[in-house]
Amino acid sequence: MTGTAVIAGVGPGLGASIARKFVAEGCRVGLFARSADFLEELAADLGDDALAVPTDITDPDAVEAGFRAVRDAFGPVDILVNHASGGSWKGIRDISPAEFERAWRVSARGGLLCSQRAVDDMLAEGGGTIVFTGATSAVRGRGGAVGFSAAKFAVRGLAESMARELGPEGIHVAHVVIDGQIEPPRVRNSQPDRDEEESLDPDAIADSYWHLVTQDRSAWTLELDVRPHVEEF
Amino acid sequence: MTGTAVIAGVGPGLGASIARKFVAEGCRVGLFARSADFLEELAADLGDDALAVPTDITDPDAVEAGFRAVRDAFGPVDILVNHASGGSWKGIRDISPAEFERAWRVSARGGLLCSQRAVDDMLAEGGGTIVFTGATSAVRGRGGAVGFSAAKFAVRGLAESMARELGPEGIHVAHVVIDGQIEPPRVRNSQPDRDEEESLDPDAIADSYWHLVTQDRSAWTLELDVRPHVEEF
Amino acid sequence: MTGTAVIAGVGPGLGASIARKFVAEGCRVGLFARSADFLEELAADLGDDALAVPTDITDPDAVEAGFRAVRDAFGPVDILVNHASGGSWKGIRDISPAEFERAWRVSARGGLLCSQRAVDDMLAEGGGTIVFTGATSAVRGRGGAVGFSAAKFAVRGLAESMARELGPEGIHVAHVVIDGQIEPPRVRNSQPDRDEEESLDPDAIADSYWHLVTQDRSAWTLELDVRPHVEEF
Amino acid sequence: MTGTAVIAGVGPGLGASIARKFVAEGCRVGLFARSADFLEELAADLGDDALAVPTDITDPDAVEAGFRAVRDAFGPVDILVNHASGGSWKGIRDISPAEFERAWRVSARGGLLCSQRAVDDMLAEGGGTIVFTGATSAVRGRGGAVGFSAAKFAVRGLAESMARELGPEGIHVAHVVIDGQIEPPRVRNSQPDRDEEESLDPDAIADSYWHLVTQDRSAWTLELDVRPHVEEF
Repeated sequence: MTGTAVIAGVGPGLGASIARKFVAEGCRVGLFARSADFLEELAADLGDDALAVPTDITDPDAVEAGFRAVRDAFGPVDILVNHASGGSWKGIRDISPAEFERAWRVSARGGLLCSQRAVDDMLAEGGGTIVFTGATSAVRGRGGAVGFSAAKFAVRGLAESMARELGPEGIHVAHVVIDGQIEPPRVRNSQPDRDEEESLDPDAIADSYWHLVTQDRSAWTLELDVRPHVEEF
Repeated sequence: MTGTAVIAGVGPGLGASIARKFVAEGCRVGLFARSADFLEELAADLGDDALAVPTDITDPDAVEAGFRAVRDAFGPVDILVNHASGGSWKGIRDISPAEFERAWRVSARGGLLCSQRAVDDMLAEGGGTIVFTGATSAVRGRGGAVGFSAAKFAVRGLAESMARELGPEGIHVAHVVIDGQIEPPRVRNSQPDRDEEESLDPDAIADSYWHLVTQDRSAWTLELDVRPHVEEF
Repeated sequence: MTGTAVIAGVGPGLGASIARKFVAEGCRVGLFARSADFLEELAADLGDDALAVPTDITDPDAVEAGFRAVRDAFGPVDILVNHASGGSWKGIRDISPAEFERAWRVSARGGLLCSQRAVDDMLAEGGGTIVFTGATSAVRGRGGAVGFSAAKFAVRGLAESMARELGPEGIHVAHVVIDGQIEPPRVRNSQPDRDEEESLDPDAIADSYWHLVTQDRSAWTLELDVRPHVEEF
Repeated sequence: MTGTAVIAGVGPGLGASIARKFVAEGCRVGLFARSADFLEELAADLGDDALAVPTDITDPDAVEAGFRAVRDAFGPVDILVNHASGGSWKGIRDISPAEFERAWRVSARGGLLCSQRAVDDMLAEGGGTIVFTGATSAVRGRGGAVGFSAAKFAVRGLAESMARELGPEGIHVAHVVIDGQIEPPRVRNSQPDRDEEESLDPDAIADSYWHLVTQDRSAWTLELDVRPHVEEF
C-alpha cells in the first residue's frame, strides 16, 4: 500500500474527518471539492500530507487533472473515497428534470469519473480500496426526495457492480450506509449538548472507513451501515 | 378507472405483451417508442384501442406531446408502464461516461419525465397506477454491467420514493423485478423447444402487471419478482 | 391443477378470506386450525367444497392425518397456504425461552410439517403452489418482538430455500409480506369508518394469493408485499 | 468497558481466532462449547485471560452456570459473540423435523439464552456488545439446506430485533454475514497453496469482529458482510 488517498467531495463534516483520520494513519491525501477556500484551510491544517485540489468532479478533464496533481505530489492513488453528494429534497410533483439530473451527476457520474481514474492506478499497482458514502435513501427510497433517492440508489448499484468486477483484480470496493444526521461542525466545537446523542460523530464514522481500508483481502466487506445508538430504524 | 394506459418503451417483447393484455382487459393504450415502424404495426394489430405515438422519452417536450396525443384520443391517463431500458454491458474499465449516462437517461430520467406527466392526470382524476420494469440488476449490481446496474438501481430508488409520496394520494407505484431472459418473439412463434423452459414468457409477465393494476388500494404491492421455474437464483 | 387446497391456520380474518376466494375460483379447500368451532362454522358457510379439519399443526401425526382427510375427500393436494402464526410481543428482556420457542414452533416448524406432506402429493401430481404468509417483521426485525421476528424470519428462510429446491420440480413457493394491520372482521361487518383506510382488507389480500396460484411457471413470483395505500413504510 | 467476553460456540476455526484476537486486545474471554477437550487446549494456549467453560448452550441452566463461572473469574460480561451454528444440509424432501429443530435450537435458541444472560450484565454495567455470526444463508435461503437457512434467518431476525430494543440502552448488537468458506485450520498450518485465495482467513474475520466492539456508539454498525476478494457473489 502506497497510502495515497483521494477524498472526492470534501466538506467540513465527514469528508474532513476522513481526511484527518487517513493522515493520522500515515496516508497522504488529495482533497477534491469545488470550493478552494475550505480545501486550502483544511490542507493547511493537515500539513504536508494533504493537498488541496479544487476540482469539479462532474467534469472529466478536471477529474483527470486532479488525479494527475495528486499522483505528481504523492505517487499513484490506492485509496479513493467517493463522498460527493447532492440533491434537492423534492418530490416527484416538484422536482425539475434538471434538479433530478444534478443529484445523479454529482453522486453517480462523479463517482464513475473518479473511480475510473483511480482504477487505472490501482490496477497498475496491484490493488487498492474504493469506498462510497451511501445513505439510508440508497436502500429505501424516501418519499419527497426523489432525486436524492434515485441518485443514491444509482451509487449503490455502481458500487456493487464495481465490487464484483474489481474484487478478483485486488481492488476492494465498499459502500457505507449512513443512517441519520451527521453532527454538524458547529455543534461539535462550541455547544455540546443532549442532541449530540442523536447524530453521528464524523470521527467515529471515519474509523469505520479506515477499517475498510485495512481489511485483509480474504475477508472484504461490501457494505456496512452506521447509525447512532438511539436512532430508530 | 378510465382505463387509459401509456406503455413507455414498447418493443416486440414484453412491451407488446403488456399492450395486448391491457387492451384485452378493456384499456385503451398509447404506445411510446422512438421507432415509428414497429409501433404502427403493433397499433394496427391491436385495433382502435391502441395509438402509436413515436416519442423520444428522454426529451421533455416530446413526452409532453405524447401524453397530449393520448389524452386527446382516449382521455386522461390513469395507467403508466415505465418500460424503457438501455445500457451497454460494459464494466468500469471499458464504459465511457457517455454510455453510462445514456443508460440512466433512458431508464431513470425517462421514467421521471413520463411519471410527471402521468401524475398530473392521475391527481386530477383521483388515482392511477404506475408500474416500473426492473431487473435483477436493480437489486444486485452486476459485475461487468456498471451502467445498466446503476441505471436500474436508480429506477428502483425512483419507484420507491414515488410510492411513498403518491400512495396516500391514491396513486399505486410498483416495481417488477424480472429475473432472467425474456423469451424472444422469434422463438415463440417459429421454433418452440426445450430452451423455452429457461426464459420468461412475456404474456405471463403481463398477467402480473395487470394484477398490479387491479389491486385494491387497501393491499397494494410495491415490488414483486418474476422468474422461470427452472431459473437458478 | 386438481384445485385441492389446504389452508393451514385458518381464523376469521385473512384465512377465511383466502378460503372463500379459493372456493369461489373453483377449488376445494381443507381448513386446518386447532379450534373446531370456527372451522365448522366457516366450512358450513362455504358449502360442499370446504372441509373442516381440526388439526394441531405442530404435531406431525395430526398434520399427516389432516392431509389424509383432505386427500380422501377431495383428492391430492396441489395448493398449500402456510398461514399459521403466533408469538408473544415481548422483547429480549421479557420473553421466556418457551414463548420464543412457541412462536417458531407454530410458524416455522408447522410450515415445515405441512409443506412436507403437501410436497409428497405435488411431486406425485407434477406440480403445485405453496404460499407462506409473512409480515414486515420477516424482513426487518422489530424491537420488542423478538420471538415473532425470529419466527417470521425463519419462515422466510424456509420459503426461499424451498423455492430454490422445488421450482425445478414444478412446485411454486411464494412468500407474501403483509405490511400493516389486517382489518378485523368486527369492523368490516358492523362499523365501517375512516380507520378502514389504514388497514388491509383481507379479501383484497386473498386476490393476490390467488394471483400467485394462477401464475404461469415461466414467470413465478417468490415474494410480493402488500400494504394499505396510506401506510407509512 | 470491562473487557470480559463470552465466545459461545468455540471451535478450532473462527471461534478460536476471535478468542485469540480479543485476548490480544486486552480482553478476558470465557470459551463456551460442548466439547471440553478442545476448549482446555485453547484456553491453555491463550493463558490466564481465557477460561474453558464446557457448556451446552441449548440448556438454560448450563448457560446460566457458564455465565456465572465467567463472571466469577473475570467480572461482568460486556461482550458476547453468538457463534454457535449447526444444521444438516438437507432439502425439504429429506430433512426430519428433529434435524430442522436441531439447527434452530443451537443457532437461534442458543443465541437467545446466551444473550439474555449477557444482557443482564450489560444493563447493570451500562453497555456492551453482542455480535452474531451469520452466513449468506441468513439473507438468501439456500436450496437443499432448509434447516440451516431457516435457522440462520431466525438468528438474523433475533439480532435485528435485539438491536432495535437494546441500542437505546447502550448495547450494540451486530450481525456478520460470512459469505464463503472459512479456511480450515489444517490448510492454514501445513499446506498453504493457491486455494487459500478462495477461503476466508479466520484471523481476518476476527479483525472485523473486534472493529465492531470498538465502534463509538454514535456510529454503530448493525450488519456487515465479509468474503474473499475472489468470491463470486
